[in-house]
Amino acid sequence: MINHFCKKPLWDVARTLSAVAGGRTPADTVIRNGRLVNVCTAEIQDGLDIAIVEGRIALVGDASACIGENTKVIDAKGQYISPGFLDAHIHIESSMLSVTEYAKVVVPHGTTGIYPDPHEICNVLGVDGVKCMVEESRSTPLKCMYTMPSCVPAVPGFEDTGSAIGPKEIAEAMQWDEMVGLGEMMNFPGILYCGDHAQDIVAETLKAGKIATGHYSLPETGSGLNAYIASGIRCCHESTRAEDALEKMRRGMYALLREGSAWHDLQEVAKAITEHTVDSRFACLISDDTHPHTLLSKGHLDHILRRALEEKIDPITALQMVTINPAQCFHMDHELGSIAPGKCADIVFLESLETMKVTRVIIDGDIVAENGKMVTEIPAYTYPAWATNSMHVRDAITPETFRVEAPAGAQAVTVRAIEVIPAKVNNLEKHVTLQVRDGLLQGDLEQDVLKAFVFERHHDTGTVGKGFVKGFGIRKGAMASTVAHDAHNLLVVGSNDEDMALAANTLIQCGGGMAVVSEGKVLGCVPLPIAGLMNAKPVEEMSEIVSRLEEAWAQIGCSMPSPFMTMALIPLACLPELRLTNRGLVDCTKFQFVPLIVEE
Amino acid sequence: MINHFCKKPLWDVARTLSAVAGGRTPADTVIRNGRLVNVCTAEIQDGLDIAIVEGRIALVGDASACIGENTKVIDAKGQYISPGFLDAHIHIESSMLSVTEYAKVVVPHGTTGIYPDPHEICNVLGVDGVKCMVEESRSTPLKCMYTMPSCVPAVPGFEDTGSAIGPKEIAEAMQWDEMVGLGEMMNFPGILYCGDHAQDIVAETLKAGKIATGHYSLPETGSGLNAYIASGIRCCHESTRAEDALEKMRRGMYALLREGSAWHDLQEVAKAITEHTVDSRFACLISDDTHPHTLLSKGHLDHILRRALEEKIDPITALQMVTINPAQCFHMDHELGSIAPGKCADIVFLESLETMKVTRVIIDGDIVAENGKMVTEIPAYTYPAWATNSMHVRDAITPETFRVEAPAGAQAVTVRAIEVIPAKVNNLEKHVTLQVRDGLLQGDLEQDVLKAFVFERHHDTGTVGKGFVKGFGIRKGAMASTVAHDAHNLLVVGSNDEDMALAANTLIQCGGGMAVVSEGKVLGCVPLPIAGLMNAKPVEEMSEIVSRLEEAWAQIGCSMPSPFMTMALIPLACLPELRLTNRGLVDCTKFQFVPLIVEE
Repeated sequence: MINHFCKKPLWDVARTLSAVAGGRTPADTVIRNGRLVNVCTAEIQDGLDIAIVEGRIALVGDASACIGENTKVIDAKGQYISPGFLDAHIHIESSMLSVTEYAKVVVPHGTTGIYPDPHEICNVLGVDGVKCMVEESRSTPLKCMYTMPSCVPAVPGFEDTGSAIGPKEIAEAMQWDEMVGLGEMMNFPGILYCGDHAQDIVAETLKAGKIATGHYSLPETGSGLNAYIASGIRCCHESTRAEDALEKMRRGMYALLREGSAWHDLQEVAKAITEHTVDSRFACLISDDTHPHTLLSKGHLDHILRRALEEKIDPITALQMVTINPAQCFHMDHELGSIAPGKCADIVFLESLETMKVTRVIIDGDIVAENGKMVTEIPAYTYPAWATNSMHVRDAITPETFRVEAPAGAQAVTVRAIEVIPAKVNNLEKHVTLQVRDGLLQGDLEQDVLKAFVFERHHDTGTVGKGFVKGFGIRKGAMASTVAHDAHNLLVVGSNDEDMALAANTLIQCGGGMAVVSEGKVLGCVPLPIAGLMNAKPVEEMSEIVSRLEEAWAQIGCSMPSPFMTMALIPLACLPELRLTNRGLVDCTKFQFVPLIVEE
Repeated sequence: MINHFCKKPLWDVARTLSAVAGGRTPADTVIRNGRLVNVCTAEIQDGLDIAIVEGRIALVGDASACIGENTKVIDAKGQYISPGFLDAHIHIESSMLSVTEYAKVVVPHGTTGIYPDPHEICNVLGVDGVKCMVEESRSTPLKCMYTMPSCVPAVPGFEDTGSAIGPKEIAEAMQWDEMVGLGEMMNFPGILYCGDHAQDIVAETLKAGKIATGHYSLPETGSGLNAYIASGIRCCHESTRAEDALEKMRRGMYALLREGSAWHDLQEVAKAITEHTVDSRFACLISDDTHPHTLLSKGHLDHILRRALEEKIDPITALQMVTINPAQCFHMDHELGSIAPGKCADIVFLESLETMKVTRVIIDGDIVAENGKMVTEIPAYTYPAWATNSMHVRDAITPETFRVEAPAGAQAVTVRAIEVIPAKVNNLEKHVTLQVRDGLLQGDLEQDVLKAFVFERHHDTGTVGKGFVKGFGIRKGAMASTVAHDAHNLLVVGSNDEDMALAANTLIQCGGGMAVVSEGKVLGCVPLPIAGLMNAKPVEEMSEIVSRLEEAWAQIGCSMPSPFMTMALIPLACLPELRLTNRGLVDCTKFQFVPLIVEE
């Protein structure tokens, strides 16, 4: 695969590299006195210099002859020199940050390349939204090697997204320079049972010679896992048990071991490496979804490396898992993932292998971060107006919008309520009996039952799904969010119609985001004007705003960790048991719409 | 990279694989009771079945549900089941066999794929000759994944080859389906010192997204090796010291550890793995050049695996070095090199890991060899007349042709003679004083000095190089060969002009080959009608004919091992010190022509 994630293609600069290695032309930069983390042979090598020119490594060895008058000589002072870190599976949108701001926060932590799946923006803005992110990436030093979202919509027929992606769109996207493969194929039933749509999407990826990435979350490693891998899907980040990760590696699938903000898989899945004597070349460490607060307080892959060490993974093995292993997974190891002649000079300085503290980051030969801060400017990127104007809710929303009519004459009605479980992705279908007042069904704070509405917001269709949720524990007010997986319609949950209308309208006015209101006041609001998913503000500011939102949740009575995360999954109709989309209540065990009111 | 070395592309059969893995469609073949050599995780796994359909692996696990009425069930009876062996660097022409016959002998030894560099035929017949071999390969089950010869001629300006390859030809060849990369870039000075020709040839390969293979034989691992690797060359089989192989691996270059018929490197280079605690993913085992006798008596990669075990390489590591490692080297690990779902069903049954005895070979799901014999027919391939009619020597050769005139009036003359060294590729320049008779310089059996002539044989140019060689020890007769590296002109060496003429004409009549004659009789002749390099006869017959030739060498007094190999290097003007091409004597330390007669 020819790729475009380096300053210049190797074939254009090979002569210069040879001349520098041969001592006939001075290097741009020489690093001395470092301890090389050699991920090719899994050794630490002392006493080697690294000579860099044209953004690539010309020599690893004695670079005395490569130093000229204008060569920048960096004294590593005994620090460890590692290849730049690569995250093989990441959704930038989860950070709520723009690509620019995401790059600014992760690069100083040692991340030099990521394989993003822009699944969220694609659900809202389609191929054009993906193109915006790709375009924004071009101005950042972070190498964003995109995978094209494979499952938009996630559950066709049960919700309305802003866009739909099929084999044709995939085939086209595979021709883009920045597109290295297919995003996580979540539709594993489609693969297992030979759905044409899912199979064709993978087929178009393979035909283009690119990498299909996976999402196989079943705790089943027999016929299902085999069928899934046999389709040509090369990696998967959904193992939550060590045995699942190990079986994937054994079947030639890259096991991407995840440690995200909300999904802490590593404690368990690290055992695939530590409790078995296996070749670990098929294992990588990845983040998947990370919140601004985690990025700010803990870091990115450096944090996950520290977690790996806590789980007793050997430091060099762990570093291979964020360098050469992901590079080999994506067939890009000829360009990235090791400190070797010809490779891009993407280099991380580490204070020690115990702390994995990153002190300096070089990308394409340029120092881009030092001591935890970017030292290079990234030009601002402005999203087009259609991308920051994504709230297309047809009808004006008022308190009356949230009326739920009861059957004529009923005094009390039993409904299907969605019961959420703190910090879990699955939920439960609970039948609860609600009182009727003035012919209208009411929420019930005593039973911890709230109204929930999902408004289609992409194409002014005016469709709206109505239901009830249980388990948030709030005592007053309302919440709204346009981060509402995967269609990202406008989700509103609340204790009274007035606050629900205020929450909804607050987001409509600010172009999307997350809000908590109570008694006619906005207690917290995270504006996410880019597609209703992201904000171009710096991570420090976003982390602060999100913290205030969490406080607002607590103020109205919810003690759940990251409750907006749990709320955002209410419409995710690919997970059990009961979900609410803009089209209505979905039984996700049978994949059929069900009525709100239980027939008795 | 999309490749064409499987029965059907994965995207065409993925649905069927899923259906078989899911137990809804019966497999074509199921292997049970084997011990899986899992090269992904470096484990032996017992109790796993392998289900195969459409030439690919659908499932590794419990295949009970995949067995239908027509499923062929193979009981492995506790044997080891390994991925098919891959040889990452091989010249088929060295075996003197056609591709068909080469396949017939190596496949029963477990070889399912090779990466041939058809360098020899390209020197004689150019791109069209390479195309013939590629075409012949299509009818064999052996996967021949070609690399395009990079150095034709080997030493431009010092010899006349049948053809010349430049960046344009490389760019074109990279578009062929069967061409996966560039053949060994022997012109390392061209790379190190930025010669446009060599650099452009590598550049065209990289531009096409294909793999450039190397040949870096210097015992220097500093600036030279770095410069060479920095050009984008990915592997090298020329290490003869463990430290050279290890340094290549450390610099991200695949070290192809060689054990050929004549080059026994493994005893030394295996120490790169066995005497250092290193990740061995960058190491492969390869054969480079193998004679028919070695193939017949010892085998191919199975023999090299046994040699690896003798050198204390762990058996699973050794098997990785002929399976997943070469597949990763060529970015083909998504298709080949492991027994995993979706991969080509290229499978070898091994009696034990101690003997590495191959009992059964499956390629693309079909049993192709059992108990050391092919069990499938390969249709005969007929080379076109121009390929079997490659002896284009302009002038009739008679005893008079071999006259070497002395300076007028000289009684004795000191000449530059080429002294060969048994079983070594290098030679020496020796100055010897020869008697003059009738104005003509004579060989001298007392000093072990013979006449040597090289006739251009490709384009009827009539050019001829004349010299003297020393060291063969023959007492009578003459030898001729069209296997005369790398231009493969007609080389004749002998003790008298009559026998030299007979040897030369014997080869002209049979379309090329190797001959030994004495006292007017042909003692041994190996006809190699295909380009003067190969013969379509079976290996048993070829081995027999070559044995008779070796006996003939002994009959006339030569006790060297494989003397025709040593003789074939006399014209190889890229090796030190003195060589004879059709253009004359070449000082290969200074790369200049030198006169036969030493000026005193």
